[in-house]
Amino acid sequence: MTEHIVKAYGDELDQLTAEVARMGGLAEAQVADAIESVARRDVALGRAVIERDHKLDALHREIEKKAIRLIALRQPVATDLRRTLSAMKLATDLERTGDLGKNIAKRGLVLAEGEPMQPLTRSIERMGKLVSMRLRDVLDAYAASEVDRAIAVWNTDDEVDEHYNSLFRELLTYMMGDPRTISACTHLLFMAKNLERIGDHATNIAETIYYEVTGQEFIGERPRWNPDVAETTPEPPTTA
Amino acid sequence: MTEHIVKAYGDELDQLTAEVARMGGLAEAQVADAIESVARRDVALGRAVIERDHKLDALHREIEKKAIRLIALRQPVATDLRRTLSAMKLATDLERTGDLGKNIAKRGLVLAEGEPMQPLTRSIERMGKLVSMRLRDVLDAYAASEVDRAIAVWNTDDEVDEHYNSLFRELLTYMMGDPRTISACTHLLFMAKNLERIGDHATNIAETIYYEVTGQEFIGERPRWNPDVAETTPEPPTTA
Repeated sequence: MTEHIVKAYGDELDQLTAEVARMGGLAEAQVADAIESVARRDVALGRAVIERDHKLDALHREIEKKAIRLIALRQPVATDLRRTLSAMKLATDLERTGDLGKNIAKRGLVLAEGEPMQPLTRSIERMGKLVSMRLRDVLDAYAASEVDRAIAVWNTDDEVDEHYNSLFRELLTYMMGDPRTISACTHLLFMAKNLERIGDHATNIAETIYYEVTGQEFIGERPRWNPDVAETTPEPPTTA
Repeated sequence: MTEHIVKAYGDELDQLTAEVARMGGLAEAQVADAIESVARRDVALGRAVIERDHKLDALHREIEKKAIRLIALRQPVATDLRRTLSAMKLATDLERTGDLGKNIAKRGLVLAEGEPMQPLTRSIERMGKLVSMRLRDVLDAYAASEVDRAIAVWNTDDEVDEHYNSLFRELLTYMMGDPRTISACTHLLFMAKNLERIGDHATNIAETIYYEVTGQEFIGERPRWNPDVAETTPEPPTTA
């Protein structure tokens, strides 16, 4: 009987992790397709991204519900508790990532109605590919519980910022040069901001992986063990 | 001995709630001051907002750490578990709210170096006051555990969207009319977007309060009890 309960508990935890991984795959596809839809002015693809977003919302709710049940019924501690709480956090980041992807796709539909804005959409595509790659890397790190790989993503966050800054300047120059493009350019501006935010979520995910695997808070410019704020998840008192 | 443990446990939970309330007060002040600094072109106030943001980050980390400890050591269930998980969620929303306030203040510093943009900053101020009010209302609802008040905030989210849309149109018109204002206007555009996002966080907070108090997920256009997805937090199995 006890054996059975322990096994089912492990299964539940594995299932939770698997659902987060699945949600990650979906979010990754949404972002990649959103960028593709903008780059190719593909209205059908853009609509598909918008339509598919509800799946991420449903998975988010599902993961949160399962995690809360698991905490309430199984009362996990140490590693298991970290895995459960991390699943909830990651689901929140992935849901937001999906929202941002959907927003990019929506703006893509508006842009597809106007003149092509070639050099600018190519810059968006470039930045989008960089952000997509970071998202893929950090989700691979999650699937493999590889802290080093997660930290590598964390450490290259400034690449996204550089892309954003140069794209921002490019857009301003464009708008000033031809005020008729202002309305379209504000959509591109928000797309760039959304991509930057997706990059931030990838960074958050990297921090969560670090916490899940090591039990330490990820702090500072380089990973380090801060004795003041970091401590392993405590075990429950043995005398209850 | 058991008496003592139970008391300390209740104290810990109360302390957690109090820290979230304190964090809420701080976030509220940050947003209000950020808007004030933009409206009055008050560089000193803007700098104070930016400088104070680290307090919210520290409180966020503190609340998260305490909540995790509480779950691990006390293994709360039902209402207590919901209170604990809600504290973690609210701290995340409030930390992001603070970030957005800081970003508004930073953009305010840039704008203060240029020409005053009177009608536009007044529109930002108006939208900012609306968003601040919603944030205050929802934090009052949290302090008083008043679900109806939280739902009232949730139900008026479209007011913020309306403000945002009209401000967006106003900004586009301004930029097209005078391309020299484009750079300044993009800052105002992002300020408006930040305020809209703060409004979204107030909505999230309302949903979390609803969940904490009722044990139900808040779904749909009006609060309703969905038997398929909502269920009360389960009690642990009695036969362990």
